[in-house]
Amino acid sequence: MNSMTNFLEVKTLEEARMELEKHWRPYRIAVDLQICEAGGRVLAEEVFSRIDLPPFDRSAVDGYAVIADDTFKAEEDSPVQLKCKGSIRAGEWPKMKISKGECAEIATGAPLPRGANAVVMVEHGIRNGNEVRIYRAVAPKENITPRAYEFKKGDKVASAGQVLTPPLIGTLAAVGAGRVKVFKPPAVSVISSGEEIVEPGEKLGKGKVYDVNSPSICEAIKNCGGMPKYLGIARDDAKEVRGLLKKGVRISEIVIISGGTSAGRGDIAPKVADALGRPGLIVHGLAIRPGKPTFIAVIQNRPIFGLPGYPVSALMIFDQLVAPYLRYLSGLPQKQRVVNAILSTKILSTRGRRELIPVKLTRKEDNIFAEPLLKGSGAITALSMADGYIDIPLEREIVDEGEKVLVNLFRGGEFA
Amino acid sequence: MNSMTNFLEVKTLEEARMELEKHWRPYRIAVDLQICEAGGRVLAEEVFSRIDLPPFDRSAVDGYAVIADDTFKAEEDSPVQLKCKGSIRAGEWPKMKISKGECAEIATGAPLPRGANAVVMVEHGIRNGNEVRIYRAVAPKENITPRAYEFKKGDKVASAGQVLTPPLIGTLAAVGAGRVKVFKPPAVSVISSGEEIVEPGEKLGKGKVYDVNSPSICEAIKNCGGMPKYLGIARDDAKEVRGLLKKGVRISEIVIISGGTSAGRGDIAPKVADALGRPGLIVHGLAIRPGKPTFIAVIQNRPIFGLPGYPVSALMIFDQLVAPYLRYLSGLPQKQRVVNAILSTKILSTRGRRELIPVKLTRKEDNIFAEPLLKGSGAITALSMADGYIDIPLEREIVDEGEKVLVNLFRGGEFA
Repeated sequence: MNSMTNFLEVKTLEEARMELEKHWRPYRIAVDLQICEAGGRVLAEEVFSRIDLPPFDRSAVDGYAVIADDTFKAEEDSPVQLKCKGSIRAGEWPKMKISKGECAEIATGAPLPRGANAVVMVEHGIRNGNEVRIYRAVAPKENITPRAYEFKKGDKVASAGQVLTPPLIGTLAAVGAGRVKVFKPPAVSVISSGEEIVEPGEKLGKGKVYDVNSPSICEAIKNCGGMPKYLGIARDDAKEVRGLLKKGVRISEIVIISGGTSAGRGDIAPKVADALGRPGLIVHGLAIRPGKPTFIAVIQNRPIFGLPGYPVSALMIFDQLVAPYLRYLSGLPQKQRVVNAILSTKILSTRGRRELIPVKLTRKEDNIFAEPLLKGSGAITALSMADGYIDIPLEREIVDEGEKVLVNLFRGGEFA
Repeated sequence: MNSMTNFLEVKTLEEARMELEKHWRPYRIAVDLQICEAGGRVLAEEVFSRIDLPPFDRSAVDGYAVIADDTFKAEEDSPVQLKCKGSIRAGEWPKMKISKGECAEIATGAPLPRGANAVVMVEHGIRNGNEVRIYRAVAPKENITPRAYEFKKGDKVASAGQVLTPPLIGTLAAVGAGRVKVFKPPAVSVISSGEEIVEPGEKLGKGKVYDVNSPSICEAIKNCGGMPKYLGIARDDAKEVRGLLKKGVRISEIVIISGGTSAGRGDIAPKVADALGRPGLIVHGLAIRPGKPTFIAVIQNRPIFGLPGYPVSALMIFDQLVAPYLRYLSGLPQKQRVVNAILSTKILSTRGRRELIPVKLTRKEDNIFAEPLLKGSGAITALSMADGYIDIPLEREIVDEGEKVLVNLFRGGEFA
């Protein structure tokens, strides 16, 4: 765009995404991690077994490794007597070889000695020094888990896109995949802007308020698999805003800037973003309430998202506009956390405008009720009560009390 | 107990928990964290606003700070003329005082200057140097957000037990709670035992297999809010097992030890645990399939849980027996992740025995089907397919194909 004199028309969310994707092709990066450090991440590769599993013919029981033929005549009241060549514990590699008339004591999980082809369970034999009486016949392969019974070396064990859950991590461990490629969490720079903003925990000077959006957006970024990098607060000064935006573009894959809780400030951030390079500002204003102050710029193949200053609005627009890209980049499923609820107060919406309305959820017996947080409530009281939001399509004018609504959740808590 | 000669009766899960709680009272520890580092954790305290919010009477619009009285006669075609004392930006503390006949230009979010009691919106005034013409009357307090409109200093903002979600983190930031007390993740030592076990990624010697349970249990611990500490592999040797158990009791709040994938080994771990101190071994064997090899010991007010060696069994028993304590200690809701599914193959269970059966889930159109992973499948292939498990009560003998079942999920993935 590179010229603020060009008029940027307000776009729908879908149009804004299409416009962005004309200029930015998000690409996923794979990193190699130890499986124990990769929990919750997403596999970026197919994983093949690095070994035969089990790696050897293994006894499935405690007992006696035998040649099955030798036991054919064994009966409860007429045992067969075999010579015992020793005992094999799990983890040991047997040195003996079993020949006709011989056996070895063997533990569950221990490798079968050469020559043996079956195992008699311990309760069907009696060892007496170097002799074992066998009281029951076994068939060849009985009580043995053969080599590669579970996986052959090279068998596919897991696919790209699978989330590393406890069972999957155990499976990867079993087949020797101690390290795997997973999608790298996208680095997202987060900038607050506003002359009046102070970092939480610092002393609040006269006329100042604490920053709200950076802490909440940083947590929202983590929840979609991203890695937030908080860059600090830019004063209402083109040079400061430019410095932080340039830093963000340099050190991260995505940049997010949001205003203070107060709106109405000049258009410093979109102007500065536009001047940073080509194509510059590509979207300014979304045709979704409360997306009006939103902007998107692309600089050096990095998107800069400008979010509304009103805190609940910032979270809702983040969720609609930015979160899908973070989930894509980190490999996570696109599924939004949602819950069905019953609207507890009628909503009047503007026909011809899509609207996102924050709601507070309450459980009453088996039902969940969604109470819209209307514009009367303060920015922070609304934020403190918001469990999620509902999305009212442009053709709806009234959503009635008692109607079923689908609530997009701001993650976690009681209702997730 | 302290004597293996005493016979420990097999206990139900509920009896085992009651027995454990006679000897161990889990207690939660609160730690003080920066809110930006506490995402997903649980508040251990009520949080009160540290400030009035907003901290001052604040303009809700861009416009002119006035004395309302001065504007009473203002009309579209007959403006009132006021002397402009300057302009106030957000983040500035106004030095001027507004007296009768005066006003100041003011930005959204900026503090109201002394003397003023209302704000005229910018579109209803015209500034010309030091003079402003006001074209519309305002009432006292109009377009002002009064000090403490959202929260008064000392107002309760959040309760103990709330999970730190993006909106809650933003709210805490807004009221100046830059650090809060959250529940400390309980430290859980994890020990594998078995002569044949090698750490994933290391060279697999002859007769050895890779450790499966420690990596998967460590991840399961994280998913319940715990902090795993992997202590390594103990050979089948009382001294080694004793060394690691003692270390676990010293450095963590809970100790977990599990066998290799092979069962049938001697009772080294429960014997050693029993001898470590009082009360020693208190539960050995659960009346729930596959809980038979499970044991619980308590030493120095620390529980030691011995889990089955079969990997899916270890995860299921962990989930039933250990996970509720970890959730309690970390403050997380006890709610288990579950999904409703349709059983795709009949299950025959033993009457009089509660049974946990791992299942693989498949989505077909709008339904989710649960396929039981029966004993025929190998330990690791079962693990690789298990999405969760169903819990068959002791009075059921048959669960039929097509029945609705509730599946406890091994967290995350497609079905959570």
